[in-house]
Amino acid sequence: SRNIRLAVIPGDGIGIEVVAEGLKVLEAVGTKIEQTHYDLGAARYHRTGETLPDSVLEELRGYDAILLGAIGDPSVPPGILERDLLLRLRFEFDHYVNLRPVKLFPGVATPLADTPAEDIDMIVVREGTEGLYAGTGGTMRRGTPHEIATQESLNTAYGVERVVRYAFEKAKTRPRKKLTLVHKTNVLTYAGDLWQRTVNRLAEEYPEVTTDYCHIDAASMFFVTQPERFDVVVTDNLFGDIITDLGAAIAGGIGLAASGNINPERTTPSMFEPVHGSAPDIAGQGKADPTATILSVAMLLDHLGLHEQAAKVEQAVADDIVERLAGWAGRTTQEIGDDITARVSG
Amino acid sequence: SRNIRLAVIPGDGIGIEVVAEGLKVLEAVGTKIEQTHYDLGAARYHRTGETLPDSVLEELRGYDAILLGAIGDPSVPPGILERDLLLRLRFEFDHYVNLRPVKLFPGVATPLADTPAEDIDMIVVREGTEGLYAGTGGTMRRGTPHEIATQESLNTAYGVERVVRYAFEKAKTRPRKKLTLVHKTNVLTYAGDLWQRTVNRLAEEYPEVTTDYCHIDAASMFFVTQPERFDVVVTDNLFGDIITDLGAAIAGGIGLAASGNINPERTTPSMFEPVHGSAPDIAGQGKADPTATILSVAMLLDHLGLHEQAAKVEQAVADDIVERLAGWAGRTTQEIGDDITARVSG
Ligand SMILES: CC(C)[C@H](C(=O)O)[C@@H](O)C(=O)O
Ligand SMILES: CC(C)[C@H](C(=O)O)[C@@H](O)C(=O)O
Repeated sequence: SRNIRLAVIPGDGIGIEVVAEGLKVLEAVGTKIEQTHYDLGAARYHRTGETLPDSVLEELRGYDAILLGAIGDPSVPPGILERDLLLRLRFEFDHYVNLRPVKLFPGVATPLADTPAEDIDMIVVREGTEGLYAGTGGTMRRGTPHEIATQESLNTAYGVERVVRYAFEKAKTRPRKKLTLVHKTNVLTYAGDLWQRTVNRLAEEYPEVTTDYCHIDAASMFFVTQPERFDVVVTDNLFGDIITDLGAAIAGGIGLAASGNINPERTTPSMFEPVHGSAPDIAGQGKADPTATILSVAMLLDHLGLHEQAAKVEQAVADDIVERLAGWAGRTTQEIGDDITARVSG
Repeated sequence: SRNIRLAVIPGDGIGIEVVAEGLKVLEAVGTKIEQTHYDLGAARYHRTGETLPDSVLEELRGYDAILLGAIGDPSVPPGILERDLLLRLRFEFDHYVNLRPVKLFPGVATPLADTPAEDIDMIVVREGTEGLYAGTGGTMRRGTPHEIATQESLNTAYGVERVVRYAFEKAKTRPRKKLTLVHKTNVLTYAGDLWQRTVNRLAEEYPEVTTDYCHIDAASMFFVTQPERFDVVVTDNLFGDIITDLGAAIAGGIGLAASGNINPERTTPSMFEPVHGSAPDIAGQGKADPTATILSVAMLLDHLGLHEQAAKVEQAVADDIVERLAGWAGRTTQEIGDDITARVSG
């Protein structure tokens, strides 16, 4: 089979360290990859003022997939790198599915008391291209006592239907076959109505899938008190952002949370990244857990049809985690990467 | 002192049961109250089509305070009672502070493992009149593949400043004197910029208060993993809705979470209500915990300047909770109300 053409964007802070370990595992699992590294993020922004040059965007379009570390640094005003680099990639490549498993690996400590590992096993299908992330809105009379600032959530039938359909397809393949829409239909009545009608309509095409609905406020509560309620969750961009961080927290922490920004039609490269940020406070110290990136590599392999290799990486992580019980605290970023690499090579 | 003039809106489902217990405690604590009950909610809507007649709204304006149970029933389409009754009261009476303590009472089981009670002790100051709750937005080409649905978040300098100032004043009175803004400034750049600038500006007037910032996604994670990070939290209407349900979850459940919809200038009656909803599935069965309503009554007393009585109710709840350790599961709504009533009468 031909080589995988991979674009690598280590980004900022710990992004650089964790991506190095992810690549180590990717190579060890026996894939033929050609990687090209792209220097994008805070450093480039400070050096050249560039976030994502159009020429780079067009080049990236030619890859099979993108592996991204983390974007963001306190030295850059909020929104610039997020909007013009990270979100721009998601939007330009039409990553309308932001896939985020929330799964407690056996042996991982959850902050929830008395919660067996099997109770936390869901997949959040977060919409990735619409809603409040559209960035529309504005400011009038800025800095005066009469200032108003607006933000707009844009939702289209086209955008909602395709992600809801993806979620139904996902639910169909899982043992519990349950899909929960999370929204706030009682307050966001226009958008909520579109989401709820779309779920109701598609439900008729998927009689084997049980559907449920939960307001975002109640869902946040249930993530903590009854996570076993959820199997596949479908939700909008902002609610998905919030509950997947909460999901990471209950499933053992942000150090383990993987994600894929996916274009299911494969007309563009999908992009895989840990849910965590660049964590500038611990960058360069070998303290970051590369596991989230390594699990994102597994999602990447899966997306590219390399299911066997994906399973191998996931198993290696699961085994590594069981062993953590003995000696987790001591290992550096690199040591964890090495240990998991050894397992996939074996 | 003159009698307290109280408007009571039991509302729907368990609202009716829990309000009855709240009133029992209010009477027993030695306040002279004149109550008038208002029949508003799903039953009235079905009977007459009315949610909140203008004449009733004007009458309510004349009271010292409002005690509300819960509003909502699955027989009414989402949004109608919420927008035209509950949110209308909050908006018409300019309840710009939605005050929601998140406090773990000693003896209450939190779902978080290894979290001592003193680690969960914060107050969320949720903005109550703006943001995405404004209800602006619309739908075009509804029901077609070309539908678009929008929601708008409206934020004003006037609206943000007054609630942030209230939060700083609150923080000033607390031992830790820490105020955390929760928002999503890196994506909601217009609104986030207004909130962040307002906090920065007012911080200069409150040098004794430490300020901090946390994205809503990270905050949701920290509520579970490091709740001790938070003392006073100020946030917008929607983020406040989400994190206060999450707060209720970590502080022992929705059965204990109280709230006040407050107009600090007292030009209108403030409204006190449990954070929980009408829970139609358990309504009428004596299963609902009235403690959230009873704690809301304590907030009501406090707001009216009856600090001693407020403290007495809070202490009675704290004592009742300690005793729960022995025999909580058995008690009905009414028995819990009776037990707390006995304590405040003693
Ligand atoms: C960095 C930020 C723009 C991003 C988001 O809000 O989507 C992050 O929180 C995430 O979840 O990937
Ligand atoms: C019922 C609903 C409109 C309300 C809200 O979203 O504010 C409720 O969730 C709350 O928190 O009081």
